[in-house]
Amino acid sequence: MITVRVGVPAESRPAERRVAGLPETVTTLIGAGLTVDVQAGAGRHAHASDAAYRAAGANVVPDHPAGRCEVLVSVQPPTPEQAACLREGDITISFLQPNAEPELVEVLRANGVTSFSLDLLPRVTRAQSADALSSQALVAGYRAVVEATRRLPKFLPMFTTAAGTVPPAKVLILGAGVAGLQAIATARRLGAVVEAYDVRAAAKEEVRSLGAKFLELDLETQGGVYAQAQSEEFLERQRQLIAERVAASDIVITTAAVPGRTAPVLVTNDMLKAMTPGSVVVDLAAESGGNVAASQPGEDTWLGEVLVVGARNMPSTMPVHASRLYARNVTNLLVMMTADGRVAPDLDDEVLAGCCLTHRGELRRELS
Amino acid sequence: MITVRVGVPAESRPAERRVAGLPETVTTLIGAGLTVDVQAGAGRHAHASDAAYRAAGANVVPDHPAGRCEVLVSVQPPTPEQAACLREGDITISFLQPNAEPELVEVLRANGVTSFSLDLLPRVTRAQSADALSSQALVAGYRAVVEATRRLPKFLPMFTTAAGTVPPAKVLILGAGVAGLQAIATARRLGAVVEAYDVRAAAKEEVRSLGAKFLELDLETQGGVYAQAQSEEFLERQRQLIAERVAASDIVITTAAVPGRTAPVLVTNDMLKAMTPGSVVVDLAAESGGNVAASQPGEDTWLGEVLVVGARNMPSTMPVHASRLYARNVTNLLVMMTADGRVAPDLDDEVLAGCCLTHRGELRRELS
Repeated sequence: MITVRVGVPAESRPAERRVAGLPETVTTLIGAGLTVDVQAGAGRHAHASDAAYRAAGANVVPDHPAGRCEVLVSVQPPTPEQAACLREGDITISFLQPNAEPELVEVLRANGVTSFSLDLLPRVTRAQSADALSSQALVAGYRAVVEATRRLPKFLPMFTTAAGTVPPAKVLILGAGVAGLQAIATARRLGAVVEAYDVRAAAKEEVRSLGAKFLELDLETQGGVYAQAQSEEFLERQRQLIAERVAASDIVITTAAVPGRTAPVLVTNDMLKAMTPGSVVVDLAAESGGNVAASQPGEDTWLGEVLVVGARNMPSTMPVHASRLYARNVTNLLVMMTADGRVAPDLDDEVLAGCCLTHRGELRRELS
Repeated sequence: MITVRVGVPAESRPAERRVAGLPETVTTLIGAGLTVDVQAGAGRHAHASDAAYRAAGANVVPDHPAGRCEVLVSVQPPTPEQAACLREGDITISFLQPNAEPELVEVLRANGVTSFSLDLLPRVTRAQSADALSSQALVAGYRAVVEATRRLPKFLPMFTTAAGTVPPAKVLILGAGVAGLQAIATARRLGAVVEAYDVRAAAKEEVRSLGAKFLELDLETQGGVYAQAQSEEFLERQRQLIAERVAASDIVITTAAVPGRTAPVLVTNDMLKAMTPGSVVVDLAAESGGNVAASQPGEDTWLGEVLVVGARNMPSTMPVHASRLYARNVTNLLVMMTADGRVAPDLDDEVLAGCCLTHRGELRRELS
């Protein structure tokens, strides 16, 4: 019997250090009756050697596996050239970021490839084990605090010494999704005093359960959402609140990004100018437009004596564990569409239908 | 009445970002009846502006204040050229590191300067508020964990996610003095599993009280010290224990430095080769010979897939709070020798006598 071959490439996009398969997930896929080809060097940043992949049962191949496997799994989307090697009926899974890659999407559609984008995974219970957006946001939230901490010229914890006390750092987190909540938890671990804000007033309980203060606007809410959200009054009150709390903080971490959409500017240059010299601002949304007006993706920018860190692919800065979570996510999704060694996605399944982008020459989602 | 003038220079030695006086300590010194001159830009890395020093009552002066003040306080020792400007009876306080700076010491002696080295401060209760070695070791221990954490491609805390669990990082601390204990505390805060070793078996209780495991050699102790310390048997048992625990760790931080002496090599290249790829080792003793054979001060060195970080002036990486503690320490020592606006060190006082290096043309300590 000829088994279905899964290909794991060495990621070729700039500064991508993760990998979509690790020896442990190779073992899982072989257990599901599949064969796995791993491109030589694929795990180098994740410190997984070719020998370790071989020991887990993978074939280590010299080139990008597109066109020599039936299923291609990766972190970043294939390039249009790599995608052009895929054949009708082949399957590919990655963060396809379809709105940013219309040329790639057209190649996938035209070639009859069945493509799944983890960006589009429905947020339902059955899909949680494949939820790579959440797992990578967890990494990003943790790393945002690590990167801020190393740049802050102060301690995060309070210290009482024979030469007197230094107070704990004050940390403000804007956006209390997965990344924001993990940033809160990490800053709290390090002993900082933390406060957080989210347009969803319903985030209050989660924020408080992590030991942080939840900042509230004095406005009516309906079902946990500010009733007047996006009204002029709402935006002005929000602006005032954020300005006041930014000025009082040593570290600000902004996490208000929505995949595929432009992030809202929450922190203006005037707000930064009111901060204590030496303060640090990390903008996790820098790649999607930025929550901080002054941020540039992948760069540290000084605005006066305030350091603005524009995140670029934050999960990639911690490739071993980011890859471990991602590889498990993508493997879980693949196993969900595999039975008896055959990969046959059931597009009536809400999870698979939800994240399927192209299939049999059809584009199944409208791009924006 | 002409008041005694205290000078605070902008530090001129390479990569020194701390400052020996801040606006708050200017206020203290003026309260003690002294006048303070601060060199323009002295506080720039500590984010203390010339305007803030002026607001606290200091004179901001354009040049290095040596020779224009009666008391010179600094972090790094003055250069021999700066010291040559000091006059008979002038006082200077810094980390003089006398064994490393024999030429400087000779200038101070020959010019009749009364010099105090914070390296030499007696470890007695009355001296604690001036104990800059301890305050800066506190900073170094904290920063060692921050620097290791940002280089580790893994989480420190354990995470349980829908895609399974990642275990907590394992951290080994060698040396449980002030820096080592602070490294233990910081790694524990971040959720790591921590173990520590010290040649002083008596360090056990402190290590355990911070939630870490204390590694013990199966050897007799006398008064909390291994009776056979430095014997062949002791050294071989210690080597075996360290080799075994290094191999099992994600992060190793070595802190076994004794000011003025060459640090012992505790971690060999063979030990590093047995570590998991991606592991990180921080050698806080890199500047004094190194506890890690492969470390180079101020450099990151890969040994295979293990990253060795050679610390150089770690406190200087966190200049606001390192300066705050240092400035308070040096100010406390200066106030100890000041009464009614006159600075008159009583060299019968054990604290002042203990750290006085030169006085009236005499060298009061033997250099090694």
